[in-house]
Amino acid sequence: MRSKEIQLASRPVAMPEPEHFRIVETEVPAPAEGEVMVRNLFMAVDPAMRGRMYDSKSYVPPFELDAPMEGPAVGEVVESRDTRFAPGDLVFHRLGWREAFTAPAERLEQREKGILPPQAHLTFAGVTGLTAYAGMLHVGGLKPGDVVFVSAASGGVGSLAAQIAKIKGHKVIGAAGGPEKAAFLLEKLGLDAAIDYKAEANLTKALARELKGIGEKGIDLYFDNVGGEHLHAALAVANDFARFPICGMISQYNLGGNAPMAPRNLMLMMGKRIRMQGYIANDHKDLWQHCMADMAAWHRAGLLHSAETIHDGIDNALKAFFGLFTGENLGRTLVKLG
Amino acid sequence: MRSKEIQLASRPVAMPEPEHFRIVETEVPAPAEGEVMVRNLFMAVDPAMRGRMYDSKSYVPPFELDAPMEGPAVGEVVESRDTRFAPGDLVFHRLGWREAFTAPAERLEQREKGILPPQAHLTFAGVTGLTAYAGMLHVGGLKPGDVVFVSAASGGVGSLAAQIAKIKGHKVIGAAGGPEKAAFLLEKLGLDAAIDYKAEANLTKALARELKGIGEKGIDLYFDNVGGEHLHAALAVANDFARFPICGMISQYNLGGNAPMAPRNLMLMMGKRIRMQGYIANDHKDLWQHCMADMAAWHRAGLLHSAETIHDGIDNALKAFFGLFTGENLGRTLVKLG
Repeated sequence: MRSKEIQLASRPVAMPEPEHFRIVETEVPAPAEGEVMVRNLFMAVDPAMRGRMYDSKSYVPPFELDAPMEGPAVGEVVESRDTRFAPGDLVFHRLGWREAFTAPAERLEQREKGILPPQAHLTFAGVTGLTAYAGMLHVGGLKPGDVVFVSAASGGVGSLAAQIAKIKGHKVIGAAGGPEKAAFLLEKLGLDAAIDYKAEANLTKALARELKGIGEKGIDLYFDNVGGEHLHAALAVANDFARFPICGMISQYNLGGNAPMAPRNLMLMMGKRIRMQGYIANDHKDLWQHCMADMAAWHRAGLLHSAETIHDGIDNALKAFFGLFTGENLGRTLVKLG
Repeated sequence: MRSKEIQLASRPVAMPEPEHFRIVETEVPAPAEGEVMVRNLFMAVDPAMRGRMYDSKSYVPPFELDAPMEGPAVGEVVESRDTRFAPGDLVFHRLGWREAFTAPAERLEQREKGILPPQAHLTFAGVTGLTAYAGMLHVGGLKPGDVVFVSAASGGVGSLAAQIAKIKGHKVIGAAGGPEKAAFLLEKLGLDAAIDYKAEANLTKALARELKGIGEKGIDLYFDNVGGEHLHAALAVANDFARFPICGMISQYNLGGNAPMAPRNLMLMMGKRIRMQGYIANDHKDLWQHCMADMAAWHRAGLLHSAETIHDGIDNALKAFFGLFTGENLGRTLVKLG
């Protein structure tokens, strides 16, 4: 079987460009004993992949040059020489950015077939769901009465985080870029207020205005996907003892050596006794079972809208990835591969 | 009895200057029923007072204009018309910035006389001690093996925080401004390494160098009194799951409308899963009894050096306060009033 894959050709310093990547077609080897051949159905692209393009230590190793990149994907088993997998099985793995591959069975995780659409294992029924769930409920410690602000609320994680808070009965303000996304927050996600940050000269004033509009004075939990000016505004309107789970800082990823200039009011943390905490979903695997049960139930009950933008074919995978940084995608960004 | 007091005449926008204050002499009224007349022995000045000179909401109300400022002090009862106090009693209160006063007995707290020097109730045996104790042990969650970094480690709170970590058996790096203060950290406080931040072009490199010197790779707890570049450097060299109790950000207090520009690497919080938490001692009163018992025992055992700079007389109180922002004082800054 032939497979097209996307390799990292050089390391971008600031914004990633097409020249940093190449598309290569290879022959997928037949599985040896203990190996499985998989045809990918969907892969996901996310901002964290940007970090792995740097050659620096992080919680995951950097991508290797001249090798296919990695990322979460779901696929179907084509051929198996391991007793745990059979042709037709649905599997989750991290060997995205390629159409098909052969790998040791240990790289694959079985997923139940037919209950959810396959790509759900890359959205609410996967690590994206756990990221929202752990950040909102565990790191953020959502508690009765909390007023919630979510940045990038139309994104893959943000849309789930905002909906979890709504399902739990909270007032939620979301921010996103552009009038369509702001409308999406109100109409599809049912948030109490939406801010189109691109239309606002001053995010702090916008947040204060929206808080007033919903009869509130400040926020108690800020789910941060963005950092920068959003974080600055959240600090400015935070109530005492607010908690800021730091899930991402996408505004800060592609600045290269240029220093990001916000927040400029970090000293408010003291008087307001704010807790900011960076986290990654992998540290919260103990929540996996509860998270999956809750997510599936909310989905079945029609309470959870799975926000996703699907691009078609591996040739569009880079376009999908670049779109993360220009705000073109709504919800989780997926690429349909099979 | 006559008393000189220091009033706030106008609100400083950036750095406080003598013109923002005035010294006024008044007659102290005889106590009415339920009131007590006190002659102050020592008052303390601290950076938090800067915040109360702004006319903005915080966890304490702003100072009033044309009235004596307030601040922690210890004094001796001169005359009492309340059964709880008698002449000669040692009392703690927040009516500093004046030589003597008459106030309702409710404003005073009895302190044991003769065990500790009176000013100890303004240093390790007071809120300063609780601030260091709560930040290091509770908010910071100091745990075995933690490598500790303390900024403003020659200051009132910082010197105690650093010593608590040493007493608990940790490796501690302290930062302070100037070679005398750096020597003080090593010789008087017994820290493992000291950084004179004024002599360093790059604090991150200085921290990495000192870490290497003590055989460590990163810090697990950063006790932040300073913010700005110190916080930036601490983020850069932090280990995964590091905790940053935010006790103060003195580098950010007098910037007026000028935007503070650091840290520029806040996005490291995510990958490193760093927890930053602002706090004030008042939220941790439940620790008071344990803190006082530990502090007194450590002091008696000769383990705790009380770092203090004593200025003489109310006429020097403003000089003492201004010195906080130019780094002139070592340890807690006190003014001897009686």
